[in-house]
Amino acid sequence: MQILDCTFRDGGYYTQWDFPDDLAKPYFETMERLPVDIVELGYRSRPQKGYYGQYFYSPVLLLRKVRELAPTKTLAVMLNEKDCSLNELDSLLDPCRGLVDMIRIAVAPVRFSNAIALAEIIREKGFKVGINIMYISSLNENSALFDTLSKGDDVADAISLVDSYGGVSPEQLKLIVSLCKGVTSIPLGFHGHNNLELAMANTLTAIDSGCEIIDATITGMGRGAGNLRTELLLTYLAAKNGLETDFDKLGNIVARFEKLKEDYGWGTNLPYMVSGANSLPQKDVMDWVSKRYYSVNSIVRALQNQKRGEKDNLKLPVLQPALCEKVIIVGGGPSVNEHAEAIRLFVEKDPEIVVIHASAKNAAVFKGVNNKQYYCIVGNEGQRLESVFSAAEGIDGICVLPPYPRKMGTFVPSGLIEQSFELEDVSFSTKYADSHTAVALQTAILLKAVEVFLLGYDGYPNQSLSVKEQDLVNENNYLFNEAAKHFSTFAALTATRYEIREQLSLYQYII
Amino acid sequence: MQILDCTFRDGGYYTQWDFPDDLAKPYFETMERLPVDIVELGYRSRPQKGYYGQYFYSPVLLLRKVRELAPTKTLAVMLNEKDCSLNELDSLLDPCRGLVDMIRIAVAPVRFSNAIALAEIIREKGFKVGINIMYISSLNENSALFDTLSKGDDVADAISLVDSYGGVSPEQLKLIVSLCKGVTSIPLGFHGHNNLELAMANTLTAIDSGCEIIDATITGMGRGAGNLRTELLLTYLAAKNGLETDFDKLGNIVARFEKLKEDYGWGTNLPYMVSGANSLPQKDVMDWVSKRYYSVNSIVRALQNQKRGEKDNLKLPVLQPALCEKVIIVGGGPSVNEHAEAIRLFVEKDPEIVVIHASAKNAAVFKGVNNKQYYCIVGNEGQRLESVFSAAEGIDGICVLPPYPRKMGTFVPSGLIEQSFELEDVSFSTKYADSHTAVALQTAILLKAVEVFLLGYDGYPNQSLSVKEQDLVNENNYLFNEAAKHFSTFAALTATRYEIREQLSLYQYII
Repeated sequence: MQILDCTFRDGGYYTQWDFPDDLAKPYFETMERLPVDIVELGYRSRPQKGYYGQYFYSPVLLLRKVRELAPTKTLAVMLNEKDCSLNELDSLLDPCRGLVDMIRIAVAPVRFSNAIALAEIIREKGFKVGINIMYISSLNENSALFDTLSKGDDVADAISLVDSYGGVSPEQLKLIVSLCKGVTSIPLGFHGHNNLELAMANTLTAIDSGCEIIDATITGMGRGAGNLRTELLLTYLAAKNGLETDFDKLGNIVARFEKLKEDYGWGTNLPYMVSGANSLPQKDVMDWVSKRYYSVNSIVRALQNQKRGEKDNLKLPVLQPALCEKVIIVGGGPSVNEHAEAIRLFVEKDPEIVVIHASAKNAAVFKGVNNKQYYCIVGNEGQRLESVFSAAEGIDGICVLPPYPRKMGTFVPSGLIEQSFELEDVSFSTKYADSHTAVALQTAILLKAVEVFLLGYDGYPNQSLSVKEQDLVNENNYLFNEAAKHFSTFAALTATRYEIREQLSLYQYII
Repeated sequence: MQILDCTFRDGGYYTQWDFPDDLAKPYFETMERLPVDIVELGYRSRPQKGYYGQYFYSPVLLLRKVRELAPTKTLAVMLNEKDCSLNELDSLLDPCRGLVDMIRIAVAPVRFSNAIALAEIIREKGFKVGINIMYISSLNENSALFDTLSKGDDVADAISLVDSYGGVSPEQLKLIVSLCKGVTSIPLGFHGHNNLELAMANTLTAIDSGCEIIDATITGMGRGAGNLRTELLLTYLAAKNGLETDFDKLGNIVARFEKLKEDYGWGTNLPYMVSGANSLPQKDVMDWVSKRYYSVNSIVRALQNQKRGEKDNLKLPVLQPALCEKVIIVGGGPSVNEHAEAIRLFVEKDPEIVVIHASAKNAAVFKGVNNKQYYCIVGNEGQRLESVFSAAEGIDGICVLPPYPRKMGTFVPSGLIEQSFELEDVSFSTKYADSHTAVALQTAILLKAVEVFLLGYDGYPNQSLSVKEQDLVNENNYLFNEAAKHFSTFAALTATRYEIREQLSLYQYII
């Protein structure tokens, strides 16, 4: 049995395939010393749109360094079949000769024959060839794959079964392995994802069923819920089979990745469990989990919709608001509560000011204020609003939701369905249409506001910004910049770390 | 099949069985609405030494509140067999009548007959009785338990198999269940721990093998590596068996516990994996993992020693140092590096000053300083020291280790074995003998120091103290207080948030 560690290749989904040298060096040095047979360090790829880091392209420069750090290991890189045509193989692979030992091709079951065509050429170039078949939790006895699998016999050195959705059960896996073994004699492998915390059990089942190449990553770092942990596999094999493992070295590298995990937060959680149990793709879930304003709840609701094949379950009337000149947009920062008295004074002085609540977090501050109020309902804001206002007192205001269909589903606070509207579109921005700040800004544009004041967009202290927070900051700055073009005044009235065109003070208006 | 949620009972190991009311209320209300059959809310216990919170004693006051929040659920409390004698049952259980439905007895396999004696009386009082057999990963076909298990038939309503070490495999579990079924007809249950990420797979195996009561906790909160997650079991059963589950309610309560988890950090990690794979008790590991100065490495090393039955592997000569009057003790805080120049000046001015490095973190600052230096080697400090000094330059100084035998094992930096000594004892304190600060203070006492100055004990900003940090602060404050009695001067010379008798400034000495 061989162990393949693909921490950088699969973990790159979290870091955009950049890893600092002071992590890369100890990682590859440790791999060299652990009983890991194959190290898959990244992808090779033709140029793609958008930013992808060095382990996505794995340039020769990088391969040379890795080769030096792990001289005795089999080095592998991966190609995505769907992004790779036959005539590109020369330019992609010829420079790797002598540096990389093995090329693995990731392919969907229905496109298996394309992988075979690639494998033929790759093997001729002198590389070992692995074919990674994805989405195996959607396979069964009748899947067409098993009719064509034997074509791999002549061109591949291994076929690995990839539980991309993290949804396969040990019994289903046992069946799939035996179906494979019925038609091919190539060594099989297994790559497990951990949505249902079954990566380890599935791996043990795979080994029992005769799989010979086991994929794992340090701390389970990998797309979505992540993978089988290398340290778990090694610890288990050390205890049960006497596999020689240097736990000092293993412990040190695990500690390094645990630190990185604090920032990126891979590992399973309720949304990944739901996607795994229902074999739904992780890509959306991974985006949603990384956004702070989507609660666990709203993600699970969206997944339940996906499972039922519903994009959304409620079409609301389109918002066509009465116009007004002056608008305040209220964010979720603590400054609103801190300056509550001054804010109420500012708003009540001018009954024409319209209040748009981007977040319901500070809605209580405006209780009893007579100005017209809009509540933007994205993610969990509907439930938050319900918890601010008791059923008895009711909520006086209008709810605004993102355009239909809403990926995240529709939740309108109880009793408010008659006062709820959706945006026709988010016209001022091409991105982030379902962020609550985007909905608030679009509402201000529809109101044809001339002066827009922002309260409670406090931002975060720079030194302690997590990756999630940094993403949110970038996103809001982009939205502020795009929306500002539509207003003569666009100013923050409470202290802010965001890039907002003007920064004024609430207190200059109520002096 | 019945689902038993024991979040507060097993999760209490992390919170000393206190949970705030604003978590308890939504937790029990959510249990009432989820397809959970039994809620085990805590222990009942006679008075114990040390602090244990309200869910450890579960007073009638509390039981009444819980009964109101979850009126339709079977409520259970647990008794520890080893802490419970027959004549205490009246006082422990009579007050619970009408409030609690089920009593579960936790018992080691070798003491099973004691549980039977308790069960008889408990059943007569009108309660349902469950017996939880612990440490099942140490059972096999020849275990004496299987000769006596049938005695449970007349007195118990369920027997649950508890994988206390988190070390059982699905095959072993299948065997144990079938051995049980061979001798008893009582409904069986399973309680899985997640050290090897096999709690879910074992649970599915238990269900397949005919277990009828499945234990789980929200977010897996439970002793050591924790349990099967309730949300995972419910998600799986909802997807595969159509179990009706309110994901909104589930998502909300999971989010609450995920927040708590950020503070306490339950879940598996390399040390728990090692203890699980080798069926070692989690209690020590849980203590060690909660102490910041034990690295993953040193814990794994200690566990490897336990596995081999070694308490420690190296007896060193006892430290008998030359005496000196003036000592500085250097902690690991960043202030040492910030004031490096001034510190070197202070130390070099007086060649008689002895430097004791409680942590090796700041050792580099004292490179080339001619004063005598002691390095306290606890946890990972030995390796840290190695990484500060290259092999070529060597380390000039004396290493001091805690008294023999050292639970955490012995690691001496390479080439330093001739300069390494151990303390005979830590006499000034009855606690924390293997903390690096205790070793440093004891060394100062052995030196018969009169003036002791502390550098780099910065402490933490109060508002963001994690549980671990708070524990360390309490521990160090206790040590400072006890040790100070031995010195005329005991003063911090860099800014500190610790309670150190005197607070002076480094700069007053080098003006």
